[in-house]
Amino acid sequence: MIPLPKTVLYTAKFLSLVREGHWEYADRTNASGAVIIVAVTPARTLLLVEQYRIPVHSRTLELPAGLIGDEPGDHPADAATAARRELVEETGYAAERMDALTTGPACGGLGSEMVTIFLARGLRRVGAGGGVANEAITVREVPLDRVDAWLAEQAATGVLIDPKVYAGLYFLARAGELPL
Amino acid sequence: MIPLPKTVLYTAKFLSLVREGHWEYADRTNASGAVIIVAVTPARTLLLVEQYRIPVHSRTLELPAGLIGDEPGDHPADAATAARRELVEETGYAAERMDALTTGPACGGLGSEMVTIFLARGLRRVGAGGGVANEAITVREVPLDRVDAWLAEQAATGVLIDPKVYAGLYFLARAGELPL
Repeated sequence: MIPLPKTVLYTAKFLSLVREGHWEYADRTNASGAVIIVAVTPARTLLLVEQYRIPVHSRTLELPAGLIGDEPGDHPADAATAARRELVEETGYAAERMDALTTGPACGGLGSEMVTIFLARGLRRVGAGGGVANEAITVREVPLDRVDAWLAEQAATGVLIDPKVYAGLYFLARAGELPL
Repeated sequence: MIPLPKTVLYTAKFLSLVREGHWEYADRTNASGAVIIVAVTPARTLLLVEQYRIPVHSRTLELPAGLIGDEPGDHPADAATAARRELVEETGYAAERMDALTTGPACGGLGSEMVTIFLARGLRRVGAGGGVANEAITVREVPLDRVDAWLAEQAATGVLIDPKVYAGLYFLARAGELPL
């Protein structure tokens, strides 16, 4: 493609608003990408994080996730390192292995952010989780054998489920970790 | 939650950049939400759309999708109507039924957009698809019995796969439409 004329319309602290050709989208100013982690504990529970998300004014349930390159010392290219760190920070679990499953656009038309989904293997509890600084994260350990019913119950109480949780379940099903 | 102080930092044509408390995110100015459609043809192919996405400077593969309320006459609340329209416009297939599967945040921390995923049933070809106006969409009909291999081949050529495609595959697997 021939590069389109690109204009940065506004730059805030974490995001900038960009126009490129006829398209408008958001760019992060402080990160080179994001990671999402599909993690199953030795007790066969899926690790999810519950938090209040200001943009949607609601509590949400998501796979553990974080940005690449937003902490001092982060190498922008090392998504697996970010995935290991975020899993520990958010859930208190360390992983023996972090296998990349797929990399794609985090939000198609809305932003430039790319996200890599990892499958964590060999989990071991090393802390309490809950996030850092002003993150207020509740770790939820969901028994895999009733994950669909549990998610439906949560949705019925008004908690929003991130659609990428279901992508994570697909990868678990394909890996033989989640019977359907 | 006590409402946080909210400031609209910049308003462009399609997006505005908002600060609310310590958080920054993008708001759409022309839509009340989005729809995504999981659709399988009578020939057992999954309908995907391929297009060049300016924000990620790459061709992408996504489930058919669109905005609610961005066309004259749209009722903002009627997501199913938008889903029927977008499926016809993008893929050329009309659906007898549109069943809502889940509603959640389109992009967690980055935007306010909410998305509803639908399962389309009873598909019938009524046109060519390809989108409207300046959309340049290629319809891809992917045999369900080799969808994983096909997606891996596409990714190997540099096409980016939207993670929500895998969420769609999970719903198909759960509905007994995709043997794993």
